[in-house]
Amino acid sequence: MKRLKKIKVAFQGELGAYSERAAKKFFNQAKLELKPCLTFAGVFHEVENSFTDYGVVPVENTLNGGIREVFNLLGEHKVFIIGEIKLKISHVLVANKNAHFSGIRRVYSHPQALMQCRDFLRQNHLKPVEFYDTAGAAKHVAEMDDLTAAAISSEEAAEHYGLKVLRKRIENNSENYTRFVVISTKFTVAKNADKTTVIFTLRNMPGALYRALSVFAIRDIDLLSIDSIPLSGKLWEYRFYIDFKGSIAEPRCKHAVENLGELSHNVKVVGSFKSGETIS
Amino acid sequence: MKRLKKIKVAFQGELGAYSERAAKKFFNQAKLELKPCLTFAGVFHEVENSFTDYGVVPVENTLNGGIREVFNLLGEHKVFIIGEIKLKISHVLVANKNAHFSGIRRVYSHPQALMQCRDFLRQNHLKPVEFYDTAGAAKHVAEMDDLTAAAISSEEAAEHYGLKVLRKRIENNSENYTRFVVISTKFTVAKNADKTTVIFTLRNMPGALYRALSVFAIRDIDLLSIDSIPLSGKLWEYRFYIDFKGSIAEPRCKHAVENLGELSHNVKVVGSFKSGETIS
Repeated sequence: MKRLKKIKVAFQGELGAYSERAAKKFFNQAKLELKPCLTFAGVFHEVENSFTDYGVVPVENTLNGGIREVFNLLGEHKVFIIGEIKLKISHVLVANKNAHFSGIRRVYSHPQALMQCRDFLRQNHLKPVEFYDTAGAAKHVAEMDDLTAAAISSEEAAEHYGLKVLRKRIENNSENYTRFVVISTKFTVAKNADKTTVIFTLRNMPGALYRALSVFAIRDIDLLSIDSIPLSGKLWEYRFYIDFKGSIAEPRCKHAVENLGELSHNVKVVGSFKSGETIS
Repeated sequence: MKRLKKIKVAFQGELGAYSERAAKKFFNQAKLELKPCLTFAGVFHEVENSFTDYGVVPVENTLNGGIREVFNLLGEHKVFIIGEIKLKISHVLVANKNAHFSGIRRVYSHPQALMQCRDFLRQNHLKPVEFYDTAGAAKHVAEMDDLTAAAISSEEAAEHYGLKVLRKRIENNSENYTRFVVISTKFTVAKNADKTTVIFTLRNMPGALYRALSVFAIRDIDLLSIDSIPLSGKLWEYRFYIDFKGSIAEPRCKHAVENLGELSHNVKVVGSFKSGETIS
């Protein structure tokens, strides 16, 4: 009997985190060895040092926007994006088996999840308490013997820690998707790649960004997102993070990026990959 | 004797928060009645309902980038920016009077402050614990009778809650500035205004952002920052948040914004004000 080697994948958060679900969905049928990390930097560390084959990190959420810390890590580490997956996020309120909704006073979760459920929390006069991550909050509530405490997490986390689901779909907006990218030390362009991520820096002068964007506009390349991040230690200078439609294997995209190199600094093609499907 | 009416100013956080310091520095000699709010939304609520004259909220940090939640609130509420101030942020590690640095195990603070001090925390094997805000973390540590707990906060917060400063300047990068804006329900343009903030939305199509930015480029108007935020409930459509150099009272800036109205949707001039000095 043939034994397949397990694929090692690092993600941020406890077991039961949304990133774990994203990893499982992306690698689908493959046998995975999942490695939870405390921080995003930890995931990059695992991948860069080949302790794992891949890492899965969130880069953007429809409600809260880009995750700057991850953008910076993508700019600073020798890792590349090899794929992405979009996950529909639906939060549930979970508590100990003996807890009742009417008795809940405090709700633990990641600041982003608390923000995404703020209407629900406000309407029910529940006090938000910031916690490391959503699954960690569920674990914390499971460990406390406190019927006034609940957590906002995924249903998976509730199952994982033996908690009861008190309320489902408590997010402000049901269009809550998080985009995750899969990172690796190897730069590979898939045959069906249709999306490319580039990072570059610009000095602040009139028209600098306009000229940089011209390399895409003159080639009718569609920008999918743009983010500017202040450069650490350089006052009010910015690093740009752009997603555009197309593969770096296409001549017009390759030329656009070469052209961008003439108009900006430190251009890095972070990845060229198949844009991710949305999974619920 | 003439009695001056106190200016009422709302800010997010506990007393001793950086926003409180920003408010005091901005209004300088004026008599202030400061109102701490639990959330950024709370600050906007106070201002929009005229419970306070002004609000002070952070919009950008040199290390972590723009504060999306505040950008969204600026887009959604009938408030305007009337001024700004940049504050040099220097974090200190604070603990109870009887605590010693060697005994500290856990450090409470706002996620952004924890991230800004992550090198220090890692080197000293201190466990970060996320908390509502920096001053709140100092208050929490003061309330706990625990010599293994510390907080990352401002020196003001340490004084305020009777704590001892164990370490100073523990941030990764000494170039740590936060930009705060002062909001009001009245749109007023100062005579010496040299900076304008606009918000607009774009449909995702090739060249849309390039065309929108042309209104600034053809008039040699310098962009100071740009941010794109996914529109709540509209998948992968973006709201843009731009700061440019110049006053809306100048014809070229006025024309640029009119021109922008032809190329985008829901243009809002959030404010035209004097760019803030950097205060340490």
